[in-house]
Amino acid sequence: MPRRQAETWETGKARKRVVIEGVKPAVDGGRFPIKRTVGEKVTVEADIVTDGHEVIAAQLLYRREQDLDWQRAPLTPLVNDRWQGEFQVTDLGRWRYAIAAWVDRFRTWQRDLAKRVDAGQDVAIEMLVGAGFMEEAQARAPKAAAKKLGDKAKILRGEGSLEEKLATAQDPALTELMSRYPDQRFISIYDKNLTVVVDPVKARYSTWYEMFPRSAATEPGRHGTFKDVEARLPYIAGMGFDVLYLPPVHPIGRTNRKGKNNNPVAEPDDVGSPWAIGAAEGGHKAVHPDLGTLEDFCRLVEKAREKNIEVALDLAYQGSPDHPYVKEHPGWFRWRPDNTVQYAENPPKKYEDIYPFDFETEDWQELWEEFKSIVLFWIEQGVRIFRVDNPHTKPFHFWEWLISDIKKDYPEVFFLAEAFTRPKVMYRLAKLGFSQSYNYFAWRHTKWDLAQYLTELTRTEVREYFRPNLWPNTPDILTEYLQFGGRPAFMIRLVLAATLGASYGIYGPAFELWETRPREPGSEEYLDSEKYEIRHWDLERPDSLKDFIARVNRIRRENPALQQDWNLHFYPVDNEQLICYSKFSGDLANNILVVVNLDPHHTQGGWLELPLGELGLDSGQPYQVHDLLGESRFLWHGPRNYVELDPKVAPAYIFRVRRRVRTERDFDYYL
Amino acid sequence: MPRRQAETWETGKARKRVVIEGVKPAVDGGRFPIKRTVGEKVTVEADIVTDGHEVIAAQLLYRREQDLDWQRAPLTPLVNDRWQGEFQVTDLGRWRYAIAAWVDRFRTWQRDLAKRVDAGQDVAIEMLVGAGFMEEAQARAPKAAAKKLGDKAKILRGEGSLEEKLATAQDPALTELMSRYPDQRFISIYDKNLTVVVDPVKARYSTWYEMFPRSAATEPGRHGTFKDVEARLPYIAGMGFDVLYLPPVHPIGRTNRKGKNNNPVAEPDDVGSPWAIGAAEGGHKAVHPDLGTLEDFCRLVEKAREKNIEVALDLAYQGSPDHPYVKEHPGWFRWRPDNTVQYAENPPKKYEDIYPFDFETEDWQELWEEFKSIVLFWIEQGVRIFRVDNPHTKPFHFWEWLISDIKKDYPEVFFLAEAFTRPKVMYRLAKLGFSQSYNYFAWRHTKWDLAQYLTELTRTEVREYFRPNLWPNTPDILTEYLQFGGRPAFMIRLVLAATLGASYGIYGPAFELWETRPREPGSEEYLDSEKYEIRHWDLERPDSLKDFIARVNRIRRENPALQQDWNLHFYPVDNEQLICYSKFSGDLANNILVVVNLDPHHTQGGWLELPLGELGLDSGQPYQVHDLLGESRFLWHGPRNYVELDPKVAPAYIFRVRRRVRTERDFDYYL
Repeated sequence: MPRRQAETWETGKARKRVVIEGVKPAVDGGRFPIKRTVGEKVTVEADIVTDGHEVIAAQLLYRREQDLDWQRAPLTPLVNDRWQGEFQVTDLGRWRYAIAAWVDRFRTWQRDLAKRVDAGQDVAIEMLVGAGFMEEAQARAPKAAAKKLGDKAKILRGEGSLEEKLATAQDPALTELMSRYPDQRFISIYDKNLTVVVDPVKARYSTWYEMFPRSAATEPGRHGTFKDVEARLPYIAGMGFDVLYLPPVHPIGRTNRKGKNNNPVAEPDDVGSPWAIGAAEGGHKAVHPDLGTLEDFCRLVEKAREKNIEVALDLAYQGSPDHPYVKEHPGWFRWRPDNTVQYAENPPKKYEDIYPFDFETEDWQELWEEFKSIVLFWIEQGVRIFRVDNPHTKPFHFWEWLISDIKKDYPEVFFLAEAFTRPKVMYRLAKLGFSQSYNYFAWRHTKWDLAQYLTELTRTEVREYFRPNLWPNTPDILTEYLQFGGRPAFMIRLVLAATLGASYGIYGPAFELWETRPREPGSEEYLDSEKYEIRHWDLERPDSLKDFIARVNRIRRENPALQQDWNLHFYPVDNEQLICYSKFSGDLANNILVVVNLDPHHTQGGWLELPLGELGLDSGQPYQVHDLLGESRFLWHGPRNYVELDPKVAPAYIFRVRRRVRTERDFDYYL
Repeated sequence: MPRRQAETWETGKARKRVVIEGVKPAVDGGRFPIKRTVGEKVTVEADIVTDGHEVIAAQLLYRREQDLDWQRAPLTPLVNDRWQGEFQVTDLGRWRYAIAAWVDRFRTWQRDLAKRVDAGQDVAIEMLVGAGFMEEAQARAPKAAAKKLGDKAKILRGEGSLEEKLATAQDPALTELMSRYPDQRFISIYDKNLTVVVDPVKARYSTWYEMFPRSAATEPGRHGTFKDVEARLPYIAGMGFDVLYLPPVHPIGRTNRKGKNNNPVAEPDDVGSPWAIGAAEGGHKAVHPDLGTLEDFCRLVEKAREKNIEVALDLAYQGSPDHPYVKEHPGWFRWRPDNTVQYAENPPKKYEDIYPFDFETEDWQELWEEFKSIVLFWIEQGVRIFRVDNPHTKPFHFWEWLISDIKKDYPEVFFLAEAFTRPKVMYRLAKLGFSQSYNYFAWRHTKWDLAQYLTELTRTEVREYFRPNLWPNTPDILTEYLQFGGRPAFMIRLVLAATLGASYGIYGPAFELWETRPREPGSEEYLDSEKYEIRHWDLERPDSLKDFIARVNRIRRENPALQQDWNLHFYPVDNEQLICYSKFSGDLANNILVVVNLDPHHTQGGWLELPLGELGLDSGQPYQVHDLLGESRFLWHGPRNYVELDPKVAPAYIFRVRRRVRTERDFDYYL
């Protein structure tokens, strides 16, 4: 009867006196995984407290999801009951982490013993208390250790001198031995399913090039093929790209096909939008006959990989009215009262060449499975990266299921979300599993906007799940800045994308040939867009930016500091047109400082101010900044230095910062 | 076979397209309840998004925990996909809240129809789509509503004019009708056990007076009794207090009893510390014979309640060596190798008159039940408020169990935590169920410290679970500020406590008689502390602060703005010794502005600056500030005004701010 109420309490929990809370990182309390790439570290923090004044022992637990046993890493106290530890994720896939903590009565006893002795108190009884702890540990320890512990306990119980007993009690070897066999009867475990998804390194550091294969023919007028793209690989690799993203390569619908410049009526020879997927020749698992065969595609994937280029495929879950699904699975579409399929629309705009799928269909399970089988099909052809078209128009739950299910068997596969949508939706999709995301970079042009936005992406909790991929242009986005800024604007946006983001991409050859013509004033659509027609590009035009791009990408390759996002810091410049930021490596061995003139029209100069201490620079010593773009070198003194950039010549400095390591009486030598 | 994988997904979840996240308030994601008092509102916010562009419908759900059905309140969108709604907690006890949201295809259809019509599109088919939605709702609706819906659908399907159909489709009455029978097949419910604990109003707004009953005798030398305390009720009520907190009233141990001024050796007539609970006469359920009988105590509780004063009892889970538990339940204590019970200590300090309980005992269930029975015993005697001694030295889980268990049957009972400990522990205890908490106010003296700390307590998430009770002094805390600042220092700290905090308390008569003598220099202990001896106080001393306290407490009673914490805002003053803050009621009907001179020695003057717009004041009109302490009135103009305070006269203004409602040509009349 007196036990009635307390028994309703979880018996196992009642005597666990340590509580663990405020664990970071944890996205929405562990509802979503955090993200890392292979070889990165996870630094974990938590508030750990107990009642009373006893000493707490705490450990960080971690394991690959498929492993049974936890591995352990130390947690050490910072201030204000905050503890910290870290572990490294050495393999692809899902990892778990948790925290264990308990009251350490032995170390409490050691600490208090010292205080008692200092205060001159009699500690005879205390020695027996300590011996008791050792004997308990003895019972938990294997033979050899048990013997040692027993021997020590005997000293404390024995007739020896106080000095001998104290030396035994406080012996670091004893502390270490005791810590191996702790009393964990009342251990508290914080295990809220905290998960790390470990992606390949390319999910963090990647350099994307998008192109339309059908525009890859060497001569004008001909429909480009996978073989043409293969022939262009040296050009792409030469610029330093390592992901080649192709818009959909499937058969294109004929019904309601769009003509050039999005004309609702197509001419007979118009090629249509690659996103109007599906025709008599097949759907999402077929290739467009004019591009070649599936074998050609697979060969392209292989040849690209030989040059360290991954081919990324477009994943657009929508069909043209001619898609085989329409007849085979009418239940996957929404039907209108006039017995036609509901086409895509954003009223009053209509996209009659495209049918969306009805995710509210009773047949959703078949639909999901079919969509998954599309991904598996292309994985079998060698594809490892998918760029997902408009994921924000398909249900969140679907993505969470699809991506986690695919990554279970293929942890090396990853997905880029093209979710140009509301911020909360963009972030939610990232939480659900997308490894990279397009974002608002294309529309951030002022210093304030850029610093504000990139700080949000790289210095707040967002970075735990959202990896930005920065694109200055795409086939849908030709910003006014690029339209009016000319060649310098393209250089500026390239340097910004390539140095602000560990991952960035361009849509070429429109980018390197700085295509600036919009379909109409005020539009961000390209005139004569490749979305609706084949274009022929003169890749060898002397004013092409390909060499500049190659140089920037080589700088990225040679400087590990530029291959990560979390190390981005902005600094003040007294000119609003000049932006300054650094990416320093953790060990300060590779230190990059970037200054960009955001004004594509005029020379701009200004004083920038660096926090030398944070950058590991000695304020009393000069330091060298070496511009990796233009190869000039400057010797700077103190925090304030003047810079000037003429956009016609070079709109940016990408400095490698070198600390002086000898005095000026030595030969000049910089680390 | 193709169904295999998707079936592992929760079938019920797959087609729920709306997601709800970022729900506030929620303490640690719903692990702990938020707190309110009866009649308060709960404002709930959430991010609610769906894929695509459809219109979302959302509701706030709430109910008393014991009710089966949710009540509903509207949620309305703010910006950036954030939604907000509120509900009122009208009863004591636990309430639950949740959020429901779904895609509203009917309102999507209405919205898009307008766009289509504006664009001059043919909407004949659309009318049939709309009729379909109405017919579906018809099937869900009761008879009368169903008929209406059917009639409307017929109009849309009929041969009438476009105008007639459009008028029907966009009729607000139809919108309202449809919203009553929505298609909620794929409704998303965010129900993470979000809980509100609703306390009595006194948990938010209370004015505490602590005194030692044994010092309540009218003549020196006699041991005070409950009857003496009863006789003092008019004095306490006269000062405006509504909680009378008594240190433990139980028999006091004799073994190792402490003498005056914490002398380890007691004289035969020394009365000992009331916190050394338990003797031959009984333990936690007995009263000290010298204080009177249990009946006397109950009568005191009753008489106090007649004056709107609740008697708060001290709950100190510890025993003297003479406590009956020691013999009856030796297993509840920790034993030393010399077969003595482990006394309380914080090495090298020893408290040999006190035995702590061993919460790690195998008999923890009996221990917990016994402790609960103590609370129930005193509840049966009429006690509704418990001040808990050092809760941070007992396990967290115990408190969570005890408090929630007690409040299940007695939701009007509440607990004040005396957790003068590390900040994370203090906050954790509040999360676990303590309705009020002592805090660091006593040691916050500078303007910066006070503003910083009170802002943390009242303007951050902390306020959802932590209700501060501000004490300028306690029997353990005589701050240096009070020791050296004299009478003005006590006035200053009283005004600060009483106006910064909706709940505050003093330890008297030491406070109103501004007792300043520490046991020794540098100590915060009182000389001749009542913890160890009986004191006789001259309550009628002419320099007593009792009238000042009465006035301040009357101002609190008459001004609802001072009865809450969340409305506290600090304003700049150009003198570091002057602090200025406001508490305005939500409807701006009761507007209090406080200015305090923190310097107890010198007159201080300065310019303060008020954000007139936020305060509902017209910058072009003068406004009146009426000092409720000194009864002076000032006519102020604009945001900057000069104040000056002489601590010898009055160290503070407590202004009621009155907006001018007529022009100066009318009689002066202020709202």
